[in-house]
Amino acid sequence: MNNKLQVYALADLEHVKVHGRTTGNLSPLTLFWTGSAVELNVQGTELWVEVEVNYEIYEPWISIVMNGVPVSRQMVTAGRYWVPVFRGMNADRVKNVRIVTEVQAMNGDPGCSLQFHAVRTDGTFQPVKDKPYRIEFIGDSITSGEGAIGAKGEEDWIPMWFSAIHNYTAMTAAAMNAEYRVISQSGWGVLTSWDNNPHANIPAYYEQVCGLLTGERNEALGAGAPYDFESWQPDAVVVNLGTNDGGAFYSPEWTDPASGKIYKQRLNEDGTYHTEDLEAFEEASCQFLITLRKNNNHAHIIWVYGMLGIPMMPAIYRAVDAYVKLTGDRKVSVLQLPNTTAETVGSRSHPGVLAHEQAAEALTGYLKELLA
Amino acid sequence: MNNKLQVYALADLEHVKVHGRTTGNLSPLTLFWTGSAVELNVQGTELWVEVEVNYEIYEPWISIVMNGVPVSRQMVTAGRYWVPVFRGMNADRVKNVRIVTEVQAMNGDPGCSLQFHAVRTDGTFQPVKDKPYRIEFIGDSITSGEGAIGAKGEEDWIPMWFSAIHNYTAMTAAAMNAEYRVISQSGWGVLTSWDNNPHANIPAYYEQVCGLLTGERNEALGAGAPYDFESWQPDAVVVNLGTNDGGAFYSPEWTDPASGKIYKQRLNEDGTYHTEDLEAFEEASCQFLITLRKNNNHAHIIWVYGMLGIPMMPAIYRAVDAYVKLTGDRKVSVLQLPNTTAETVGSRSHPGVLAHEQAAEALTGYLKELLA
Amino acid sequence: MNNKLQVYALADLEHVKVHGRTTGNLSPLTLFWTGSAVELNVQGTELWVEVEVNYEIYEPWISIVMNGVPVSRQMVTAGRYWVPVFRGMNADRVKNVRIVTEVQAMNGDPGCSLQFHAVRTDGTFQPVKDKPYRIEFIGDSITSGEGAIGAKGEEDWIPMWFSAIHNYTAMTAAAMNAEYRVISQSGWGVLTSWDNNPHANIPAYYEQVCGLLTGERNEALGAGAPYDFESWQPDAVVVNLGTNDGGAFYSPEWTDPASGKIYKQRLNEDGTYHTEDLEAFEEASCQFLITLRKNNNHAHIIWVYGMLGIPMMPAIYRAVDAYVKLTGDRKVSVLQLPNTTAETVGSRSHPGVLAHEQAAEALTGYLKELLA
Amino acid sequence: MNNKLQVYALADLEHVKVHGRTTGNLSPLTLFWTGSAVELNVQGTELWVEVEVNYEIYEPWISIVMNGVPVSRQMVTAGRYWVPVFRGMNADRVKNVRIVTEVQAMNGDPGCSLQFHAVRTDGTFQPVKDKPYRIEFIGDSITSGEGAIGAKGEEDWIPMWFSAIHNYTAMTAAAMNAEYRVISQSGWGVLTSWDNNPHANIPAYYEQVCGLLTGERNEALGAGAPYDFESWQPDAVVVNLGTNDGGAFYSPEWTDPASGKIYKQRLNEDGTYHTEDLEAFEEASCQFLITLRKNNNHAHIIWVYGMLGIPMMPAIYRAVDAYVKLTGDRKVSVLQLPNTTAETVGSRSHPGVLAHEQAAEALTGYLKELLA
Repeated sequence: MNNKLQVYALADLEHVKVHGRTTGNLSPLTLFWTGSAVELNVQGTELWVEVEVNYEIYEPWISIVMNGVPVSRQMVTAGRYWVPVFRGMNADRVKNVRIVTEVQAMNGDPGCSLQFHAVRTDGTFQPVKDKPYRIEFIGDSITSGEGAIGAKGEEDWIPMWFSAIHNYTAMTAAAMNAEYRVISQSGWGVLTSWDNNPHANIPAYYEQVCGLLTGERNEALGAGAPYDFESWQPDAVVVNLGTNDGGAFYSPEWTDPASGKIYKQRLNEDGTYHTEDLEAFEEASCQFLITLRKNNNHAHIIWVYGMLGIPMMPAIYRAVDAYVKLTGDRKVSVLQLPNTTAETVGSRSHPGVLAHEQAAEALTGYLKELLA
Repeated sequence: MNNKLQVYALADLEHVKVHGRTTGNLSPLTLFWTGSAVELNVQGTELWVEVEVNYEIYEPWISIVMNGVPVSRQMVTAGRYWVPVFRGMNADRVKNVRIVTEVQAMNGDPGCSLQFHAVRTDGTFQPVKDKPYRIEFIGDSITSGEGAIGAKGEEDWIPMWFSAIHNYTAMTAAAMNAEYRVISQSGWGVLTSWDNNPHANIPAYYEQVCGLLTGERNEALGAGAPYDFESWQPDAVVVNLGTNDGGAFYSPEWTDPASGKIYKQRLNEDGTYHTEDLEAFEEASCQFLITLRKNNNHAHIIWVYGMLGIPMMPAIYRAVDAYVKLTGDRKVSVLQLPNTTAETVGSRSHPGVLAHEQAAEALTGYLKELLA
Repeated sequence: MNNKLQVYALADLEHVKVHGRTTGNLSPLTLFWTGSAVELNVQGTELWVEVEVNYEIYEPWISIVMNGVPVSRQMVTAGRYWVPVFRGMNADRVKNVRIVTEVQAMNGDPGCSLQFHAVRTDGTFQPVKDKPYRIEFIGDSITSGEGAIGAKGEEDWIPMWFSAIHNYTAMTAAAMNAEYRVISQSGWGVLTSWDNNPHANIPAYYEQVCGLLTGERNEALGAGAPYDFESWQPDAVVVNLGTNDGGAFYSPEWTDPASGKIYKQRLNEDGTYHTEDLEAFEEASCQFLITLRKNNNHAHIIWVYGMLGIPMMPAIYRAVDAYVKLTGDRKVSVLQLPNTTAETVGSRSHPGVLAHEQAAEALTGYLKELLA
Repeated sequence: MNNKLQVYALADLEHVKVHGRTTGNLSPLTLFWTGSAVELNVQGTELWVEVEVNYEIYEPWISIVMNGVPVSRQMVTAGRYWVPVFRGMNADRVKNVRIVTEVQAMNGDPGCSLQFHAVRTDGTFQPVKDKPYRIEFIGDSITSGEGAIGAKGEEDWIPMWFSAIHNYTAMTAAAMNAEYRVISQSGWGVLTSWDNNPHANIPAYYEQVCGLLTGERNEALGAGAPYDFESWQPDAVVVNLGTNDGGAFYSPEWTDPASGKIYKQRLNEDGTYHTEDLEAFEEASCQFLITLRKNNNHAHIIWVYGMLGIPMMPAIYRAVDAYVKLTGDRKVSVLQLPNTTAETVGSRSHPGVLAHEQAAEALTGYLKELLA
């Protein structure tokens, strides 16, 4: 055993970089969203990290990225314990380490949380430099990396098949040399979820730290607190929503258990979308753009869409048009991303790692023109 | 918590497939070589595996492969404990699971061992079918997957940078739909190691279960026992040795601490290999082929070489020629593998995952012609 | 010399397939548009084709495609002469041969024409089967394959750098197993050309055989005659226009030499497009869709755009929206094609063959969903 | 018509570079071997070249390469006439032009020749710089590019399916920035041809300009004259022979029509090569290496093999070993090239363009280490 190891509470570290929306609390640090991470520059031979994990249904997974390359990915089960990060390395060289949440914030599990208390090392910590760009990604299962890992035939809806690393968000950020944050939830949309639930919409929770989490424990952790937008102003906000809003037209109606009210995005008899319902989506999208601009002062806002087909694209263009006409804001645009094919599909009929790579390449090319 | 979980000792399981050379003991099962694995077909929602891990220096790593796709890779630290494999899956569907040793048998750490005691599940176990082919790979650091993972600049010699999964052995076996076993050790050769140590040669230990392991504990675990070749006769034996034998010509002499004797593969003044020393390599290679054939009755033996350059290729061809002339054995051949380039190199100046993919493609094409 | 060769006038052949809009005249056959072709199934050892070529400035080029693979590409200079196609082949086997126009109809050269009089062979002609789909492509320099061949630094505007073969149109048609026709002109748009000339618009000439050709000779050849849409109804019409309409906003004004009238698509002071001028483009696009539907009864109409950036995409979506609202026509959609990058660019800063391949792949995926 | 064109006899040009073995005669210039070329740097708008073509059976083909990119490929039929190269280009810019022989010297057609008399231009000629390396390639159908173009099912043995451009020789030379010459003949070997003809061997003709050509006309053109090795000393000689020598073991015997003598490389009953016959190949290979070194003073000699399998590789290694032992020459080595697969095969069951690209990549990597 290495008897030179010392424990450092995260809150006591001079040099630690936290990625993702948090409350700012480091005692312990709670990572809510997928792609959130603790990043450290460690000059030492060995590193451990103390996690505390809770859940009723969906367990968290983490990836460890060493000097930019993923080397470990694992399920973290319930409890408070130490996870080994590296051992036996050169004492003098500085290692860049990121411990990344692989799984989305879980609206469906009120008991789910992933926390970091402390690190243990025989080394010291060096500053982690800021990167030149900041990007915020907002999306659904695609952005949550659902299906980015696993065999094509997998059908279970479990955390194992989610990945923040094999994901166009991480790939785009790496190609842009950008820091990034992700706001995403499988099945959700701008107006409703894929099954017509009007409460399962991202805009309603956008201004909270992680408001779509449920349960008293998450409330106590500050998930519902207002998010401090000033603390991290992005250069680009990438909205990848609309896929579930489109799906709602083909799903059964949803009855609100509280009010008994019925919700349904309707199809016309000829198979086209009902105009009124489509307009409700467009209105919600336009309103969301207003919210985005209110909170993100100088960011380019790019609405991306197409990784699972483009049926909602005309409505998205209309919504952006309406917003531009209303506000005169010229830093908003739409970008179609490459469709997923039989060759690029992953598990659960979602984009696989190849589809994420293609999306990242297209998005990176576009962002470079905007941000250059 | 899932209160339907039951513990099954490995030795009590009707259906379990063990990959890699072992003693046959399942109480517990010790996996010695890289690429060794426990394979199960599980019909249940959840699976854990109980490991026991020991080491003084080099810790083991494992990968978990679900239905043929790697989903998890992690360091396993010392102790006896349960590792989660999957949770929350469909109870009816059969999941194929492989838990794979990512790191080579560690000659340099007498205390290193990885053992499996039991599994815990709410499901049942189904038979794992045999695959149509069997391949044995014999090699050095290349075959141990040293450098197959990690950033290009990594220099530490640690288990983290070894991978049995991102490895031409695993890739070739998958492409051939073959079961496979690996005998390998970084730095070792046919005659000597890269640094002229004549004891660090693979042939000397080939007929034991895992004879190159050291220490009393490994002895007690049966590493030094004779290997029962009859239990698993391969269709192909792939020998990827010679790279370190070539390196020895450029390394300082090695002094045997026991005898004081000095060993050195010499270069001539013009930079060419000293004929006598090269002939010693050829003789050792020819002898190794005799050993291989003695133990592997019907296998095609393919000596592959070239992933880190081809300076020893003429000597390898001469050795195989000599063996063929001596024995009349016609099922022995030589295959050059693609060289590693600046684009395909991995960490520690070793072949990266792209180099392994190219090697696997070339080797698979060749094996298909031989075994078809 | 092969003294079994016999000359057959094209008009006398029982089995000949002509691709591209023509007048129907085979004595001789005039091929106007790029990608137009004569296709034959020849059972014989040798084939020649008699061409007649005229031009003042821009010479035609042809490619020869044997059994689906391009084997020859050459400039054809002025005169009437025999071009060799193949020699010395197996007398019994049927060879599929296409002789393809590589260069666009040349509005800028009133003297340019490419005609086929006859073929010479020792063989016989077999029927050429119809393919299951028909696609019409309408576009500008991108669709004319300008820059699809040649070194990146080439700047001359000459036929050599045009290719109908290394072109997303040919690639898409091959992937769809479709017959195809192309209507295209470099620099032209829906409303104006890149330099604000309102006469250089494709819609004005769409209903003629090849009305954008100039000069008395082309008039006499029937280029200005009404095109018989009934003779070849496409399953898909792909419109790749808008790139030059977008460019007009950044080009100097154009003065009509006849009227002295000045034309200019204006930019606002903040660099955005002048709304009125953009609306003129949208109106022209909507009108063009009406024209397309009038003539193409059952076709899916797909407006594709993006191979050289997407600044006009919102206007294109608005135009299609307006058309759909006006007509209720639901078989019209918009598809963004992959942008050209530093890696995929060809000569003359236009899409290279890699960019055409990427466009073809995206378009093929989309068409397969529509036409399946 | 361009009335500023002037005719220049090749022999009168100050700046013209000829590639390939020739007699040195420019009045006219005869290009014998595949890959031979005339290279010019032309500052003018237009260029034509006057060719004279003869053949009884196999017609020549040429490719035109503009600024390093192939733009034209065509059959050249019998006669003396002008071939257009370019028109309408910028008068000031210098264009690099290569007119390349696409087809091998044709041993089977005594009447075949391709000659260049003159060029016609409105421009001037600039010097063509020497490249830093020189490579000579020696081979059979693979090196002649047989099958590098055309559909997979093509079976006719005709010039159309040969290519010097889509060829590992041209690709390697381009990647190395090297000038190169090719000596090759389909079906030929070191000792015998694929069908056991002992006269069809490359070494017998290596020291002549193009001695394997037949007929009085070629004799008169100087094909049989001794080649002046001093005039162009290569840095590397790449020998790609052995494939047909290997094939001879599986082909029927060959009877010399002159002597009635029978030739046959024999197989043993167990399917292995007859030792004595294999040794004859090895002896011929060793002798060829002696010839190569005699004429190429400082060149690295690399025997490459494997694009159509590696059955002769042990014999090649033995031959090289024997040569090295005999001479002490250390600048001779063997390199296995990637095998052709179902994905990379071309027409006539020969390597396609993808196989040539893979071979060029492997060979380039090897040459860079040798020549750096």
